[in-house]
Amino acid sequence: LNREPLSREAFVARLREEGAKRYHDHHEFHQRMHAGELSRRELQGWVLNRYYYQTRVPIKDAVILSKSDDPAFRRLWIHRIVDHDGARAGEGGLALWLRLAEGVGLDRAEVASCARVAPAVRFACDAYVTLVRERSLLEAVASSLTEFFAPDLMSRRIAAWERHYPWVDAGTLAYFESRVTRARADAHEAIDYVTAHAHAREAQEACVRALIAKTEILWAMLDGIAAAYPPGA
Amino acid sequence: LNREPLSREAFVARLREEGAKRYHDHHEFHQRMHAGELSRRELQGWVLNRYYYQTRVPIKDAVILSKSDDPAFRRLWIHRIVDHDGARAGEGGLALWLRLAEGVGLDRAEVASCARVAPAVRFACDAYVTLVRERSLLEAVASSLTEFFAPDLMSRRIAAWERHYPWVDAGTLAYFESRVTRARADAHEAIDYVTAHAHAREAQEACVRALIAKTEILWAMLDGIAAAYPPGA
Repeated sequence: LNREPLSREAFVARLREEGAKRYHDHHEFHQRMHAGELSRRELQGWVLNRYYYQTRVPIKDAVILSKSDDPAFRRLWIHRIVDHDGARAGEGGLALWLRLAEGVGLDRAEVASCARVAPAVRFACDAYVTLVRERSLLEAVASSLTEFFAPDLMSRRIAAWERHYPWVDAGTLAYFESRVTRARADAHEAIDYVTAHAHAREAQEACVRALIAKTEILWAMLDGIAAAYPPGA
Repeated sequence: LNREPLSREAFVARLREEGAKRYHDHHEFHQRMHAGELSRRELQGWVLNRYYYQTRVPIKDAVILSKSDDPAFRRLWIHRIVDHDGARAGEGGLALWLRLAEGVGLDRAEVASCARVAPAVRFACDAYVTLVRERSLLEAVASSLTEFFAPDLMSRRIAAWERHYPWVDAGTLAYFESRVTRARADAHEAIDYVTAHAHAREAQEACVRALIAKTEILWAMLDGIAAAYPPGA
């Protein structure tokens, strides 16, 4: 293996390539979702289980904050926690997700309790927090770079849901709409940090591995959801 | 030991008593500071070393955020990070402390580097982050209750510095002034949380132990500073 550091362009291209080919938009469950093939129960199961992932995001972002010695970095990153928790009760991504849960016909309190989350989904989401806690700040930030691919997925998801699942209250798709712009900005922040701090080839490779580990986490969540709601059950 | 839970009033009184008698205002170094007996070098040493403590505070608060599953708690707590880091560069407690460092004649960049922090001071401050990371959320919050006693100490410190150390740029005492009100509000937030969540006697005792551990950390910092700047050296 050539140990010369990659140029910024080559490093970004590598991250995009390794991430894109493993991103969970290729997972059968997402493909069935976008083709309109999910039952109401499967779609509800996805919303209910994915909420647990949403609850882990501000926690992993707080872990990331706690790993940085640099007030400037923390000032840059802290909005991610506010984006999910809201500045006030009823605001923010978690509240929007609970509205989405109501929009697909779920009980808000039951979703918020996370009591029915499939164990395999819980393990995958917890693995994300563990990854961020145990690896370096640089790798933790790199693991967030799946947001490169989120805006496209969100846009396709909104269109597919409006077309194929007309029984979903369209007003509750606001979460996905809010994430299109936000995820793009977040990915730019993170790629700027990663390219500025991964100088050595070994650090660049560690970033690629962290991003791959994150794609595995997202993939395993969908495996867990698919297994919990076998088609035709 | 009677294992009945203490009433809210008795629990708060116990926390105040155990904290007050061990608070670092009783430490000889602080007593000499307030009596005007510190040399310029000792006062500078205190400012330089204490800055490392300041840098750990937003980190331990981010760890506390990461330990909570409750968006409402995180919304309540997150301002502590912003209070120290500022909403913009040049704002917040860390920036005010660096201005104080200039006000006592230190080089701002040298203080910010933390390169001259005494090892014993570093160990004590790091022990605070470790305590918060390893104990429960409840105990981590309880460890912050030394802020009960901070407003009085800050007010006495401002008066003592203006009287005894006229060579300090008085405009740079703004950090202490900003903390008088803020610490009072923070202590109220924390005591409300602790009394609402420590139901069993064992949990109440764990809170008392966490607060005592925090007073030991603050005390050990002053031991370390005093040892690093022996009087007359």
